[in-house]
Amino acid sequence: VLFAACELGVFDLLAEAPGPLAVAAVAAGVGASYHAMERLLDACVSLKLLTVETRGGQAFYGNTEMSRVYLSRISPTSQCSMLLYMARTTYHCWGHLAQAVREGKNQYLQTFGVPAEDLFTAIYRSEGERVQFMQALREVWSMNGRSVLTAFDLSLFPLVCDLGGDFFKDHLPEADLYILARILHDWADGRCSQLLERVYRSCKPGGAILVIESLLDEDRRGPLLTQLYSLNMLVQTEGQERTPSHFHALLSSAGFRDFQFKKTGAIYDAILARK
Amino acid sequence: VLFAACELGVFDLLAEAPGPLAVAAVAAGVGASYHAMERLLDACVSLKLLTVETRGGQAFYGNTEMSRVYLSRISPTSQCSMLLYMARTTYHCWGHLAQAVREGKNQYLQTFGVPAEDLFTAIYRSEGERVQFMQALREVWSMNGRSVLTAFDLSLFPLVCDLGGDFFKDHLPEADLYILARILHDWADGRCSQLLERVYRSCKPGGAILVIESLLDEDRRGPLLTQLYSLNMLVQTEGQERTPSHFHALLSSAGFRDFQFKKTGAIYDAILARK
Repeated sequence: VLFAACELGVFDLLAEAPGPLAVAAVAAGVGASYHAMERLLDACVSLKLLTVETRGGQAFYGNTEMSRVYLSRISPTSQCSMLLYMARTTYHCWGHLAQAVREGKNQYLQTFGVPAEDLFTAIYRSEGERVQFMQALREVWSMNGRSVLTAFDLSLFPLVCDLGGDFFKDHLPEADLYILARILHDWADGRCSQLLERVYRSCKPGGAILVIESLLDEDRRGPLLTQLYSLNMLVQTEGQERTPSHFHALLSSAGFRDFQFKKTGAIYDAILARK
Repeated sequence: VLFAACELGVFDLLAEAPGPLAVAAVAAGVGASYHAMERLLDACVSLKLLTVETRGGQAFYGNTEMSRVYLSRISPTSQCSMLLYMARTTYHCWGHLAQAVREGKNQYLQTFGVPAEDLFTAIYRSEGERVQFMQALREVWSMNGRSVLTAFDLSLFPLVCDLGGDFFKDHLPEADLYILARILHDWADGRCSQLLERVYRSCKPGGAILVIESLLDEDRRGPLLTQLYSLNMLVQTEGQERTPSHFHALLSSAGFRDFQFKKTGAIYDAILARK
């Protein structure tokens, strides 16, 4: 229901309207069937995604505080692009979870008819989707960046390199601090080790690596959100979520030392290790 | 996670095993990847679908009471067929909810490449799926039949006709009581009226019709479950869930009188009307 209302632009229409709107105005405004929209809007009210008030026997719908803040594109804290990505890509991949567990690998070919040789080509599928996914990442980090960037004192490391793009091919510049924000969870251990060894070689002596991930408990029995992320990595990537010990082993074997991790209490945690 | 574990037969394997099983035994038993199965099992534990105990440093997984009762095929109250139907059909249809709201109609063609001219041919897609869906209905009514069949005193009506099958073509036998259990919600008002008029004509004088449905509140603002069923009818059928007034209007115009309804407190409610 949330995904459909986002895809249809219901929250955007209501955010830009001068006041609450009747079903007919919402249906016409987003180009949808009156009767179907009425069912969607009433379900949104029960799910606390919309408010409703009745005037003169007619129902008028508006955004809740939560929808205004997170679900309309004009809000600076909008999460619309991530929700659209989840609606159009993640949701369909999860429909193939059983087969992913059978085979132990993602189901891009089965889900979208795109071979998964090049993982991110398969994930984006088109330039438009790539641009939308980049916007989704901006949304995620505008919400979740602060807690992980303040977990450690990073003032010792003036020259920072935030790893993105095609880091398996690109030259890595020399830096005091490399940030890998939700990079490693996309990849199997072998690719992670390759990348970490390259980072170690480029890193200035005394420099560091900041790994931002959602940490599994050591016994992998929780947190549930991280377990679900790990299944999401199964259906969408070559990776997984990992425990602190698992990251410790990967970082140590690449040469890093002074391993520290901090659970932030938010959805992403932080790991720091030194060269 | 629930759908995937059902599809893979995890709960069945554990129900038939002499005791809790290690990851390797579950993965081998259902033919799945060890590492992927481990992630699925640990997520099932957090979701309280499985138990885990550690012996000699190794984890052993077993069914919870809930899984034993509802999720394994050998249980007389198994809901596996319905869950498999939801995993294979309903889940995929819901991925097209936005488009269904735009067009005001189901998305079978878009979801499965099957034209929806014959609704139930599209829903079943194959004889195997039709058989499975029939089993799913047996599961649903074995759980939910009692509350609706005891909502009214039906002892006045000795000759009962339970409407199923192709009732738009089939001859309707004369009876004292016709039961329409989750039939009308599949159809638009026009088809409902056609069917109700045929039932009225076949019904013995003084006889009755028992309509079993999930009733929407008069203002259609709840219950949430019924609202979600109504959206499910949008993506899967030509129908909708209805309010008591809506059923009253349909039954009255077909000739029925003495309209009564009872909210059972369970997921399905009961309506009785007399000829």
